[in-house]
Amino acid sequence: MDSAELAAYLGGKLIGRGDVTISGFAELGAAREGDVSFFAGSGTMPETHAGCLLIGEDVEPPTGEAAVIVVKDPKLAFAKVVAKLFPPRRLAGIDQSAKVAAEADVRASFIGANVVIESAAEVDADVEIHAGCYVGSGVKIGRGTRIFPNCTIYENVTIGENCTIHAGCTIGADGFGFVRDGANGYVKFPQAGSVSIGDEVEIGANSCVDRGALGVTEIGDGTKIDNLVQIAHNVKIGKRVVIAAQTGISGSTVIEDDCVIGGQVGMGDHARVLSGAVIGSQAGVLPGKIVRKGVWWGTPVQPLDDYKRQNALVKGLGRLKEEVKRLRGLIERDEGQ
Amino acid sequence: MDSAELAAYLGGKLIGRGDVTISGFAELGAAREGDVSFFAGSGTMPETHAGCLLIGEDVEPPTGEAAVIVVKDPKLAFAKVVAKLFPPRRLAGIDQSAKVAAEADVRASFIGANVVIESAAEVDADVEIHAGCYVGSGVKIGRGTRIFPNCTIYENVTIGENCTIHAGCTIGADGFGFVRDGANGYVKFPQAGSVSIGDEVEIGANSCVDRGALGVTEIGDGTKIDNLVQIAHNVKIGKRVVIAAQTGISGSTVIEDDCVIGGQVGMGDHARVLSGAVIGSQAGVLPGKIVRKGVWWGTPVQPLDDYKRQNALVKGLGRLKEEVKRLRGLIERDEGQ
Amino acid sequence: MDSAELAAYLGGKLIGRGDVTISGFAELGAAREGDVSFFAGSGTMPETHAGCLLIGEDVEPPTGEAAVIVVKDPKLAFAKVVAKLFPPRRLAGIDQSAKVAAEADVRASFIGANVVIESAAEVDADVEIHAGCYVGSGVKIGRGTRIFPNCTIYENVTIGENCTIHAGCTIGADGFGFVRDGANGYVKFPQAGSVSIGDEVEIGANSCVDRGALGVTEIGDGTKIDNLVQIAHNVKIGKRVVIAAQTGISGSTVIEDDCVIGGQVGMGDHARVLSGAVIGSQAGVLPGKIVRKGVWWGTPVQPLDDYKRQNALVKGLGRLKEEVKRLRGLIERDEGQ
Repeated sequence: MDSAELAAYLGGKLIGRGDVTISGFAELGAAREGDVSFFAGSGTMPETHAGCLLIGEDVEPPTGEAAVIVVKDPKLAFAKVVAKLFPPRRLAGIDQSAKVAAEADVRASFIGANVVIESAAEVDADVEIHAGCYVGSGVKIGRGTRIFPNCTIYENVTIGENCTIHAGCTIGADGFGFVRDGANGYVKFPQAGSVSIGDEVEIGANSCVDRGALGVTEIGDGTKIDNLVQIAHNVKIGKRVVIAAQTGISGSTVIEDDCVIGGQVGMGDHARVLSGAVIGSQAGVLPGKIVRKGVWWGTPVQPLDDYKRQNALVKGLGRLKEEVKRLRGLIERDEGQ
Repeated sequence: MDSAELAAYLGGKLIGRGDVTISGFAELGAAREGDVSFFAGSGTMPETHAGCLLIGEDVEPPTGEAAVIVVKDPKLAFAKVVAKLFPPRRLAGIDQSAKVAAEADVRASFIGANVVIESAAEVDADVEIHAGCYVGSGVKIGRGTRIFPNCTIYENVTIGENCTIHAGCTIGADGFGFVRDGANGYVKFPQAGSVSIGDEVEIGANSCVDRGALGVTEIGDGTKIDNLVQIAHNVKIGKRVVIAAQTGISGSTVIEDDCVIGGQVGMGDHARVLSGAVIGSQAGVLPGKIVRKGVWWGTPVQPLDDYKRQNALVKGLGRLKEEVKRLRGLIERDEGQ
Repeated sequence: MDSAELAAYLGGKLIGRGDVTISGFAELGAAREGDVSFFAGSGTMPETHAGCLLIGEDVEPPTGEAAVIVVKDPKLAFAKVVAKLFPPRRLAGIDQSAKVAAEADVRASFIGANVVIESAAEVDADVEIHAGCYVGSGVKIGRGTRIFPNCTIYENVTIGENCTIHAGCTIGADGFGFVRDGANGYVKFPQAGSVSIGDEVEIGANSCVDRGALGVTEIGDGTKIDNLVQIAHNVKIGKRVVIAAQTGISGSTVIEDDCVIGGQVGMGDHARVLSGAVIGSQAGVLPGKIVRKGVWWGTPVQPLDDYKRQNALVKGLGRLKEEVKRLRGLIERDEGQ
């Protein structure tokens, strides 16, 4: 694809050469002749040797040899170009050491070394299951999904199409449910449900999604989850939700579509985060809490503006205390007169 | 087992049919004819088609075809029934690809694909070690314990009977101990101790329990630990302790029997949590702190009532500031007269 | 080595016998005849049967049979002695079940069962790669490094010499970068960079280090990272940095040399922690924040002294409110006159 075709693909406006062939991609400073790059900032653009440059509408196009394509959102355009021209290399082949149960229905294009796939699993075409993964009985994996090394998928989990599950994830382990039986300690509550993950979901390394206790833990299409995240039993996560690293969602909590959850957020059980809510990092959501659309912060979460006002008031406490002391002085002097 | 036998087993009071055969279990809304289910709430019970229903003493028994058993704690009764009638399916067989050292004493009923068991390990009867697990030299695993895929058990760790270790756990890695040597950086402090885990312990997916530096990291009987939890070197956890997901316990801290620790709690080193303490999610316990029986909250932890009072005072700061401003106005007016 | 040689090695002052042969090491209470032990506290030393004792300069040397060596820092001296006399046992041999690509350049002394090493990997001498690890294409691992079981090292990651990577780590997974495309959801931003880890780095169990998006995620020489830590794409961590368990560092954040970061700390993206800063556990660093040398605490982080003063003011809020109420009473009485 050359720069003219690229401009057409992106619906952008081409400035300069249309015949630059795109052979790679890089950030501005590292980009070379055949590379596409982008500038998402405002103001002066750093120098670059990129062959093809994506810039926003309010940026002064650089003069020089490069093809320049003006687009609405250069970072998005760059992501789209790379996804189009340089998709991840797909693997093929079934390693001899993989152990696939005879009853499993496996059409995967790649199964790595030491993978185990149990009976009654259904693995669709174009799936990659990398070395050391365990895929339990009755698991369903949709077309195009990639599962990186050393993941464990417990029985009866369903994963949709074109998902990416990074290394070390555990999907479908028992939820954490125990009932106290007096001095005898705890009796395990059944964790006999399942997990259902939609299409185009990405889950980061070493994250955990527990199976439902009696129902289903659900993750909707297009949701992106970072590393070391904990999703407890019976949680329902909607579509196009983003959850940053080390966040934990307790049992039965619901996160509706298009929410953005920061890192290290903790949510109590049976909470509900309504569509479009944004929750800042390290925030805490109490059990049963309903979090409406808007930006939330702190523990327990409050609207960002309230949080800031509160914070400013706390910061001003020293001055307030001084003021009260001064007033007391005035009053006591008056009293003394 | 039919509903009459079940009522006798639970010590509950049977209402209606005693001849309902229990063939499954489900939550209220999903339950069908042969299913046992339970209602733990109060007030009106949702409609259900459960064949056998466990309810509390203050609930109006539904009319209809179902057998109803009145018990003190319906959720506990349900957990007991499922544990009794539908225990987890146990696996058997030694996979050919497992590599068991000749010197190891292994009587396990199930060893999955690609498991490695090193020399001098002792694995008791009825143990399941699932695919991809590594069991180091000198490890002891007690009867009935199950270890799910891709766990790593370092050398000389002891795990008791009937434990459940979920996938991706690391037990017995080096604790985090380094001594600063001026400009040279850090010298590793020896991490040569071990880990001792009691009976009936459950550890969630991708959790870590470090070995003691010179002594032993201990987890007592009946303790239940959730996913992604960090237990540092030389920690001592008592019996029947519950620790929710993503909590971290620093070195040498002691948690006595029957404590309940929420999710994402952080505990400094050498703290001591006395028997019966309950610590809320995201709380922080300072190093060396003693946490007494009762409910604790916040960072640094304080009794829940204090935490709430404090929170209310902070929430009222805006009003307090206004009040001070008003008083200043009055005083300055008086001063001006 | 006997106690006289040990004193010379440590540059310490020997008191008592110089002919005690050191055959082991232990903490004070557990130490026996041939053991070296240390007392790092002040005041009265607990009783010990250690054959050789390291103590500080301000401690009264015990009387008795033991060799006593007086040093500046007994804990450091102990760590050095154990590192010298009792280094970790090194493994040797290539397991038959390991799958090493023909094109890989592997001089490792130990490769465990079911290890996979892909093409173009370069593994130096004296390296140990334990059972179940996956080493991607183009990975470089320096001399003397040990990688414990079930780790996943994605392609093109570089790890230096004498590093220790504990079990279950994932190094080089995709960073978490997505660009919103309106109602269509998210487009993945390329995660095509790499990871570069220096020498003498230790990474705890089940931790994650993501690859750079377009650049490199870097960890400097001598840095020590605990369990379940998250290092995001393009983070730069300097030399001799210590990071405790469950801390998360967001994308492109820089931590300069010789910082100490507590557990469960969260750092936003593009922050910069200047050399010598110490950040307390559970602290939160906002995106873009610059944290200077000194001790920092809380969310958002502030200097420890400020944090303490603030905390004291908040604790005193009840009294302040009472005082304001009292002043109002006085003023209203005056007004009423």
